[in-house]
Amino acid sequence: MPYPHYAGGMAQIRIALAQIDTCVGDLEGNAEKTLEYAHRAARQHAQVVVFPEMTLTGYPIEDLALRRTFRKAAWDKANWLATELEADGLGDVYVVVGTVGTDHASDKPRNRLVVLHNGVVWAGYDKHFLPNYGVFDEFRIFSPGDHSTIVEVDGVRLGFAICEDIWQDGGPVAELAGRGIDVLVTMNGSPYEEGKTHTRFDLAVRRAKEVSAPVVYVNQVGGQDDLVFDGGSFTVDADGTLLQRSPMFVEDLGLFDFDTDAEHQTAGVIAAAPDKDEEVYTACVLGLKDYMRKNHFSGVCLGLSGGIDSALVAAMAADACGGSNVWGISMPSMYSSDGSKDDAADLAANIGAHYDIQPIEPLFVAYQNQLHLEGVAAENLQARIRGVIVMAYSNSKGVLALATGNKSELACGYSTIYGDAVGGYAPIKDLLKTRVWELARWRNEACAHGMGVGGLHIVGNESGQHGKPAPDDTIIPVNSITKAPSAELRPGQKDSDSLPEYALLDQVLAEYIEHAHGRADLLADGFDEKTVDTVMRLVDRAEWKRRQYPLGPKVTALAFGRDRRLPVTSAFRE
Amino acid sequence: MPYPHYAGGMAQIRIALAQIDTCVGDLEGNAEKTLEYAHRAARQHAQVVVFPEMTLTGYPIEDLALRRTFRKAAWDKANWLATELEADGLGDVYVVVGTVGTDHASDKPRNRLVVLHNGVVWAGYDKHFLPNYGVFDEFRIFSPGDHSTIVEVDGVRLGFAICEDIWQDGGPVAELAGRGIDVLVTMNGSPYEEGKTHTRFDLAVRRAKEVSAPVVYVNQVGGQDDLVFDGGSFTVDADGTLLQRSPMFVEDLGLFDFDTDAEHQTAGVIAAAPDKDEEVYTACVLGLKDYMRKNHFSGVCLGLSGGIDSALVAAMAADACGGSNVWGISMPSMYSSDGSKDDAADLAANIGAHYDIQPIEPLFVAYQNQLHLEGVAAENLQARIRGVIVMAYSNSKGVLALATGNKSELACGYSTIYGDAVGGYAPIKDLLKTRVWELARWRNEACAHGMGVGGLHIVGNESGQHGKPAPDDTIIPVNSITKAPSAELRPGQKDSDSLPEYALLDQVLAEYIEHAHGRADLLADGFDEKTVDTVMRLVDRAEWKRRQYPLGPKVTALAFGRDRRLPVTSAFRE
Repeated sequence: MPYPHYAGGMAQIRIALAQIDTCVGDLEGNAEKTLEYAHRAARQHAQVVVFPEMTLTGYPIEDLALRRTFRKAAWDKANWLATELEADGLGDVYVVVGTVGTDHASDKPRNRLVVLHNGVVWAGYDKHFLPNYGVFDEFRIFSPGDHSTIVEVDGVRLGFAICEDIWQDGGPVAELAGRGIDVLVTMNGSPYEEGKTHTRFDLAVRRAKEVSAPVVYVNQVGGQDDLVFDGGSFTVDADGTLLQRSPMFVEDLGLFDFDTDAEHQTAGVIAAAPDKDEEVYTACVLGLKDYMRKNHFSGVCLGLSGGIDSALVAAMAADACGGSNVWGISMPSMYSSDGSKDDAADLAANIGAHYDIQPIEPLFVAYQNQLHLEGVAAENLQARIRGVIVMAYSNSKGVLALATGNKSELACGYSTIYGDAVGGYAPIKDLLKTRVWELARWRNEACAHGMGVGGLHIVGNESGQHGKPAPDDTIIPVNSITKAPSAELRPGQKDSDSLPEYALLDQVLAEYIEHAHGRADLLADGFDEKTVDTVMRLVDRAEWKRRQYPLGPKVTALAFGRDRRLPVTSAFRE
Repeated sequence: MPYPHYAGGMAQIRIALAQIDTCVGDLEGNAEKTLEYAHRAARQHAQVVVFPEMTLTGYPIEDLALRRTFRKAAWDKANWLATELEADGLGDVYVVVGTVGTDHASDKPRNRLVVLHNGVVWAGYDKHFLPNYGVFDEFRIFSPGDHSTIVEVDGVRLGFAICEDIWQDGGPVAELAGRGIDVLVTMNGSPYEEGKTHTRFDLAVRRAKEVSAPVVYVNQVGGQDDLVFDGGSFTVDADGTLLQRSPMFVEDLGLFDFDTDAEHQTAGVIAAAPDKDEEVYTACVLGLKDYMRKNHFSGVCLGLSGGIDSALVAAMAADACGGSNVWGISMPSMYSSDGSKDDAADLAANIGAHYDIQPIEPLFVAYQNQLHLEGVAAENLQARIRGVIVMAYSNSKGVLALATGNKSELACGYSTIYGDAVGGYAPIKDLLKTRVWELARWRNEACAHGMGVGGLHIVGNESGQHGKPAPDDTIIPVNSITKAPSAELRPGQKDSDSLPEYALLDQVLAEYIEHAHGRADLLADGFDEKTVDTVMRLVDRAEWKRRQYPLGPKVTALAFGRDRRLPVTSAFRE
């Protein structure tokens, strides 16, 4: 072994928390990164290195798990990694990685943890609780494991659990508590949600008390399709004390030294927690950045209206890939105000983006010569002409088209299908409008104060990618933030003509969409009847519109469309 | 009781199989229809009437089940129905309906069967096996039942099972076999697939032998979102003899007379089975027809290119809603052949559709003055201009836009997103191209021979909706069927420039998509390496493109988008 062990007592071990960003299907790349982090951990004298859930395959792999060729390749890769670790002199290290296994009785896949040691795949544990709610579909794909696993390392008993196993009572954790362990090691693929850091911590504290031992919580980091994993791995002591915490949104190698003789374990590095706005902004940027990287996009294009939504998306894009890789397209109509055009141009200049002006009036006139549309149909026509232009840029420049819709307008259907809704990725589709304003203000502050954002280069800051910050050091023109929102599809149009004011609307949306509050609940929440009925009608209708395409009859036995669920981002090729 | 019982012996009962078309969320309408069929059954002297799975709520209800207000309303509706039956003098009849229940321990929904009798909700059974594969997501939504139920009617012991319960070994059927029953009554929501009739029958035979009793299999009929339920309810005797069969694709009331004293039960009406092409064609038309009805559309619009895909879709649409409710739009480009334009016009005339010509060249020129696109970007532009026009018709006339893509081209990505792929419903998206040709030929034959199609009015036949059939009595111009497929987006373009010949392509697609055959399997199937690699590359890339929109980061705890799954068609309003 090239790197000496941590010089502890007989029952002292160093555990490394390898918080890495994997890519679904990229067995090669994930294994290489695992090897690299195992080396780093060994150089730090760790005897045990723990990686996130399904390290080698990436997570979540959805129906890719059902492909036998993929499972075979994953199995081969785990063996290759064990051999490679041994050949590199790391055979003594216990490398705990996640992968996909097969339940040979049922031929169904398993969500599996394996311990690589002495050149072989040495011990295994299969996830017991398979979440099948919210964004999770695991019971659909995997068969559950049925026994707990303990591995003894230098006299220290390590018990294992995978993600959901610690969110449910009973099962493997209860079993481990009964068997007695020194440390509970968990590997996780826990997607980011606002406020989830506290939930996870409280949960780990509860499990630490249950097993009377410290809990090591290693989480994945990075974007995968529409999920963002925030990392933030940590260790809590048996009594619930936070011992160590990795930063959010970046790869990291955390360390935890465990001593069986100590009543309380020694604390290590505790990374600072970002503030609320920084956290969400960074999550959005990381989601976009990883989506682009994992799908081999180097640039983006988007419509710049001068409004707040496209401005925020453009700023996020510049932070994700650099302003020089952003194509901003101003597409003024006969109803666009001069202010809007100026704001769009200023924003583009501030982030150093390419900026083109493509007036839509000549195109609108050409269509209207044939179609003679009126009312909403004519408004939608303008939005769809813009959609065609954005897609033309995407096709001709080979860049990713970004949709700029926010959650409030998408929820209410205040958006045109095949119009402003076009795009391969929608960076702010999960942000309510009031949140969009908050983040825009925060982003301007971050620029003005030269703040870093979790591992990101902030455009307009001291990074090499910046454009020409506006004289007052704002990135997003103040006017875009303060003016009344308008789709500018007819003279004098305001969002508030069709929707309740956003401050109220967003509150109702949160209750209706999140808590599945029904009509009676919403009235009991104190919202007035007119608002409740308006919002419910809009949301239900928008949900119907959003989901209808690509609806069509399923008439053959061929699995396709609704019954085949592969990850969008996947590097796996047979 | 207004209608006398069937005059059998003490252990003779008549069971009615009420094969009805429900609508998700339409508690009112579903209950009214149930009442109507209960009356019809009683008039036929039935003591027991069995309805399809989740009769009152419609099926599948997806996350609608999670709304407490909906569960409460469903429960109230079941009670209302029991009271109503009693008030109408049908209290003596055992009315077996499906609905959603609540597991009070976990507060999770249950997929429930209830027996309405003497004015009350009298007995219940909860589905045990919850399918969570293919198109099914039930384990995600429901909690499983844990005990079997037997109801004794006039001395006859009826055991119950719901759909998947008979597809799995063990569970309630095994339990009922142990307890001893006279008839196994099953309510089903089993979606149509080519060839599934035989699978269901074989399965029922197996279960009949397991419980040593006849099996009554009542299936739902009608379209719901992208599923089509084909009905085809039936009864098999304990020895596997087919005793009775309802027709496919129409509502029906089947009857089965059971006599405990008889060694073999008496056979009833056995509906003829449609041929293979009629079956699939009818499934597609019923899917579209019900989608329109349940979503309150009275007409459709679609692009008519003169090609086979749009011709078949137009014929299906005319059969679903009458030719006079179909808007066909010819959108020739500079590359469209005269033959294509003529074929489109002939087709429209044959089905009696509205027919407009909207040349796209002036629009293409207007865009190109600004954008100067080349290659595929310029081809996509033409398709997207057509998409904008189709959506303009949809918006201005309030009709449903139909996408005309077939499964082969969608699978291979030979289609333009936001272009020819626009539409709220895609009637042939699950038909391979070779199947499209077969059905077009079949449809012309059906017209020529004046054949009826499972309850449909065939346009061009003797129905009142027909247009002006072509002199040779074909509906779909022969030229549309026989010419080489082309997108006509550049001079001389043929599908075969980009894709393998459809006869070969479709075989590879079937293996790759259906059987998840990997590369090695496909080579072992005898396909050549070049074809296999081409098809796999196209399919994987197209799948990626198809799934990417509306991708975006999930950053808040609010359930929305990926983690909220409501049915598209739902009549439920709080």
